[in-house]
Amino acid sequence: MNALRLASLNGDHLGRTIISAGNVRFGEDFVVIAGPCSVESEEQTLKTAQEVKAAGAHMLRGGAFKPRTSPYDFQGLGLQGLKILEKAKQETGLPIVTEVTDPRDVSWVSEYADVLQIGTRNMQNFSLLKEVGKIDKPVLLKRGMNSTLKEWLNCAEYILAAGNPNVILCERGIRTFETYTRNTLDLSIVPAVKETSHLPIIVDPSHGTGRLSMIEPMSLAAMAAGADGIMVEVHCKPAEAMCDKDQAMSPDMFGGLMKKLHILRSSMSKMNGKAMQGSGASNS
Amino acid sequence: MNALRLASLNGDHLGRTIISAGNVRFGEDFVVIAGPCSVESEEQTLKTAQEVKAAGAHMLRGGAFKPRTSPYDFQGLGLQGLKILEKAKQETGLPIVTEVTDPRDVSWVSEYADVLQIGTRNMQNFSLLKEVGKIDKPVLLKRGMNSTLKEWLNCAEYILAAGNPNVILCERGIRTFETYTRNTLDLSIVPAVKETSHLPIIVDPSHGTGRLSMIEPMSLAAMAAGADGIMVEVHCKPAEAMCDKDQAMSPDMFGGLMKKLHILRSSMSKMNGKAMQGSGASNS
Amino acid sequence: MNALRLASLNGDHLGRTIISAGNVRFGEDFVVIAGPCSVESEEQTLKTAQEVKAAGAHMLRGGAFKPRTSPYDFQGLGLQGLKILEKAKQETGLPIVTEVTDPRDVSWVSEYADVLQIGTRNMQNFSLLKEVGKIDKPVLLKRGMNSTLKEWLNCAEYILAAGNPNVILCERGIRTFETYTRNTLDLSIVPAVKETSHLPIIVDPSHGTGRLSMIEPMSLAAMAAGADGIMVEVHCKPAEAMCDKDQAMSPDMFGGLMKKLHILRSSMSKMNGKAMQGSGASNS
Amino acid sequence: MNALRLASLNGDHLGRTIISAGNVRFGEDFVVIAGPCSVESEEQTLKTAQEVKAAGAHMLRGGAFKPRTSPYDFQGLGLQGLKILEKAKQETGLPIVTEVTDPRDVSWVSEYADVLQIGTRNMQNFSLLKEVGKIDKPVLLKRGMNSTLKEWLNCAEYILAAGNPNVILCERGIRTFETYTRNTLDLSIVPAVKETSHLPIIVDPSHGTGRLSMIEPMSLAAMAAGADGIMVEVHCKPAEAMCDKDQAMSPDMFGGLMKKLHILRSSMSKMNGKAMQGSGASNS
Repeated sequence: MNALRLASLNGDHLGRTIISAGNVRFGEDFVVIAGPCSVESEEQTLKTAQEVKAAGAHMLRGGAFKPRTSPYDFQGLGLQGLKILEKAKQETGLPIVTEVTDPRDVSWVSEYADVLQIGTRNMQNFSLLKEVGKIDKPVLLKRGMNSTLKEWLNCAEYILAAGNPNVILCERGIRTFETYTRNTLDLSIVPAVKETSHLPIIVDPSHGTGRLSMIEPMSLAAMAAGADGIMVEVHCKPAEAMCDKDQAMSPDMFGGLMKKLHILRSSMSKMNGKAMQGSGASNS
Repeated sequence: MNALRLASLNGDHLGRTIISAGNVRFGEDFVVIAGPCSVESEEQTLKTAQEVKAAGAHMLRGGAFKPRTSPYDFQGLGLQGLKILEKAKQETGLPIVTEVTDPRDVSWVSEYADVLQIGTRNMQNFSLLKEVGKIDKPVLLKRGMNSTLKEWLNCAEYILAAGNPNVILCERGIRTFETYTRNTLDLSIVPAVKETSHLPIIVDPSHGTGRLSMIEPMSLAAMAAGADGIMVEVHCKPAEAMCDKDQAMSPDMFGGLMKKLHILRSSMSKMNGKAMQGSGASNS
Repeated sequence: MNALRLASLNGDHLGRTIISAGNVRFGEDFVVIAGPCSVESEEQTLKTAQEVKAAGAHMLRGGAFKPRTSPYDFQGLGLQGLKILEKAKQETGLPIVTEVTDPRDVSWVSEYADVLQIGTRNMQNFSLLKEVGKIDKPVLLKRGMNSTLKEWLNCAEYILAAGNPNVILCERGIRTFETYTRNTLDLSIVPAVKETSHLPIIVDPSHGTGRLSMIEPMSLAAMAAGADGIMVEVHCKPAEAMCDKDQAMSPDMFGGLMKKLHILRSSMSKMNGKAMQGSGASNS
Repeated sequence: MNALRLASLNGDHLGRTIISAGNVRFGEDFVVIAGPCSVESEEQTLKTAQEVKAAGAHMLRGGAFKPRTSPYDFQGLGLQGLKILEKAKQETGLPIVTEVTDPRDVSWVSEYADVLQIGTRNMQNFSLLKEVGKIDKPVLLKRGMNSTLKEWLNCAEYILAAGNPNVILCERGIRTFETYTRNTLDLSIVPAVKETSHLPIIVDPSHGTGRLSMIEPMSLAAMAAGADGIMVEVHCKPAEAMCDKDQAMSPDMFGGLMKKLHILRSSMSKMNGKAMQGSGASNS
C-alpha cells in the first residue's frame, strides 16, 4: 500500500479520488443508486431491482440491517436479506450497496456487498469505522445528521487511516428547526466537499427531504451543484413499503427522473466545455 | 381590488402568481438580480450596473439602508444612495430592488424602488409588513434565518392582508450548526413553496453561503430545483467592497455564471417538454 | 451624558450596571415580573395584577401590541390596553413593562411604560432599537430566538450608542430541533452574559418552554444559574387566556413558585457568604 | 425477570426507578460523579480520585476508551486504563463509571465498571445498546447531541427491551448555532424526562458548556431544575490534561462546588416540605 493520503486536500495536487464498484466509477460518472429502503422479500427486491435497472440505475441499494428509532420496529432480514440482494445482483448485474451497523458483521457482510454503507447514526461509531477501514470494499459514509463538514472528513479519515482509501461521502440531510421536511438537505456541502477533499460525494434526497414530491427537484439540484451521484429509494409497490413509505418512488417516477437527469447531464457537459462523453447517466 | 387570495394554496386552482417589475416578470421568466451589497458611490454603482446589464442581468440590487450587526459599521448612504440607484436605472434600464427597514421610510423609498426588499432580520417586523402592504410596488420578502415555511408564508400573508398581492419570496439561508458556510442554503424550500403557495420564489446564494466559490454551483442548483430566479452580489471591484467582500462576484465571474444559467435553462425547458421559449435568462 | 460604556465588558472594572424602574432595581435584587401575555380587558388585568402583587411580584407585564405569527390572530388592544395597564399600576403600585413594536409608537408608549420591551422578533429591528435608545426609560431586550450572544450584545449596543444606557437582557429560549418544548431555554447564556457584559439579565421560562409544568423548575434553575430575575405569564383565569393559554400560570401556582424562590434566594445568599439582605424576592 | 416496563411512563403508577451502583442510589440521592476526562496514568487517576473523594464525590468517572473526532488524537489506555480505575476504586471505595464504545468490549469492560457509559456519539449505536442490555450493570446513556427526547427514550428502550432495566439518562448539551459555548446545555430536558419517564436523569455541565467558568452555575441550576445528579470533569492538574483541558475543574474548585451543592440541597428539601434527610450530597 502507498503512503496514506489524508481525507482533506491540504493543498495537494493529486487529483480527485476515483472509486470503482463493479463497472461503476464514483468520481468520474454520475452514479445513480436506487432500490428499496429495506429488503422485505425476494419478490419485492428482485422486481424492484429489475425495474430500476431497466430505468437506468447503476447500482442497487437495499437494507438488510435497519437501524430503527424504536426497538419494536422491523429490524431487517439480516443474512436472508443479503442473500436476496446477491440474487438480485446476479439477475441484474447491478452492484450492491448495503448498510452494516456492527463491527462484528463487517467481514461477512462484505462478502455480499460491493459497497458497504455506514449510516448517519453510525458516522461517529469509531469501532465500526476502523473495522470497515480494514476491508477492501469501498465504503459509503453518510453524513451524521448533526455533523459539520470537518467532523465528517475526520470520520472518513478513520477509515483511510485504517488502510481503506475508498470512501464515498453521502449527504442525507441535517437536522434543523424546519419541520416541513424530514431533514434539511444541505446541497452546499457538495461544493464544500469539492474544495476541501478529493473524495467523491453523492446525495440522498429521499432521506434528505422525506417527501416524495421533492425527490426529483432535489436530485436535479444535486447534479447541478456538482454531486457525483444520488441515492434514491424506489419500491416496486410504494404503498406496501415496510419503512419510509412516504418517500419511496414508484419505478415510473424513477424512470421519469432518469430521463431528466440524462438531459441535465448533457447540459452540464456542455457548460463545462466538454463534448458529451459516455457519462454515467447515459450509458446504462 | 378583488377578494383577497391567501398566501397558502389551500387547494385553489387559480394558477401561480406572476409579478411584474418593469419588463421583468417573476413567476414566468427566470429572473437574475445582481448588484452590489450596498451603494457606496455613484461611480461604483453605475459601473457595476453597466457590467451586470452587459452580462445579462434583469434587475439591479443595491442597499441604501444596511441593517448591520454592529451600530459602528457602515449603515448605508440613505437618500443619496437611492438617487444613485435611480441614475443607474436611467442609464441601464434595469429595474431596481432595494431594502427598506423602517415603516416611516416605506412611502418615499417606494418612489425610487421598483421592488421593495424586506430583509431577513425584518421578516417578522409586522409594522413594516403592514406598511409595505399598503403600497403598489412588489415586495421581495426574504426568509428569516430561523424561519419555518409556515411562519414565512404567514409574513407574506401580512402583506397580502394589507392589500398588496405582489410578494416575491427569497430564500437566503438558514442558521444551523454548520460553520463552514455563513448560513445553510435550504434549496428544498423551493419545491416546498411550489407545493404550498402560488407566490414566486427566488434564491440568494450570496448570503446563503457567504463563499464566493459556492455561488455558481448553488445558483445552478437553485434553477434546477425550480426557483424563479436568483439574486447575487456583484461588485465592479470586489476587493474594495465595503461589506460582504468575501461573497461579491466580479463582473467576469458573473458573466460566466450567466452563460451556464442560459445553457441550464435550455435543458430545463427541454426536460419539461417545452420548446425553448424566450426565457428570462435568454432575452436580456 | 457621560462617555459611552460599551455593552461588552472589554476588561473594564466599572462594576455591573444597576437599572431602576420604580422601586425595583435590576442587577441588585432578584426581580420577578408577572402578568398576562396580553391585556384582554380591565377586569382581567386588574384582577391578575392584584393577585401577582399579593403573591410578591415586583413588576407587572402585559402586552398591548402583540406580534402574532398570523395577521388574523388577536393583535392586542393598543392604546386602550396601555390605559388599563396604567390603572393597574395605580391600584397596585407595580411598575409596568410592555412591548413596543413600531418606532412610531415609542415616544407615546413610553408615557405609559416603566420599562419598554423589545420582543424576540424585533431584536434586530435596528430602527426600533435606535428609537428606544433616545428615551429615558429602561429597555428590556429579549434575545432573538436564533441569536448568538455576540449579536445580542450588539443589539444592546445599538440602544446604548443612541444614548440609553439602561438595557436589561432577557433570555426567552432559542430555536432548536427539539419539539417537546416550544423553544430550548438556554440557561448557560446567564453566566455567559455575566462574564462578557455588565448588563443585567433575566429569564422568561414561560416562552422559553411553552409548558406550564416546566415554569417552576426552570425559574428555580434560572435563579441558581445567577439570573437577575424572571418574567412569567400569569393569568387570573388561565383557561380563558386569549393567547399562550398553555403556558399561563394560575395565581395559586405563581404563589407557590414565589415561596420556593424565596427559600432558594436565602440559600444562594448563604452560598455567597452574605447574610440574607433584604432581597428582591423577600421585600415585596 | 419481571414483565418489561417501558422507558416512557405511559400513565403507569409504579413510581420512579431507583438504580444502585455500590452504595450510590440514582433517583433517590443527588449523585455527584467526578473524575478526569480520560485515564492518563496511575498517578493522575489515583490522585484525582482521592481528591474528589475527599471533596465529597460519590462516584469516579474516567475514560479508558475515548471516542475522538480525529483518529490521530489520543484514544485512551484501554485495558490498562481499566486496571488503573480498579485500583482507584480499591483505594477510595468510589464506584466507577467508564465508557464502552464497541459491542465486543461490553462483557469484559463490565467486569471493571460499576456503571457502563454510552457516549453521545453512540446513543443510536443499536448494536451496542442491545449488548449493554444483556449485562447486569447499570448503563449511563448520554443524550445524542442532536437527539430529541423521544429518540433518547427509544434508545433507553433498546436497553430495557434487551433485559436491563437500569438506565440512567445523562443530558450533556445539544448542538445549536450558538458558538460561545461548546454545546447548549438543555436543562429543560430534566423536567421533560421527569414527566415522560421514570428513569433517573443526571446532567454533565462539563461537556454541556465546555467552559470552566460555567460548570458551577450550571451544576447548581441542574440541581434546582430537579436533576438526580451531575457528572463533572476534575483533574488533579488541569493544565496538563490530555483532553478537554479547558473544562477540567481543579480539586479546589470542585470542593467549592460541593459546598454550594450541599447548601442548595438543604434548601430544596425545605422547599419540598421535607425535613433534611441524609441526602446524597450531605452524607459523603
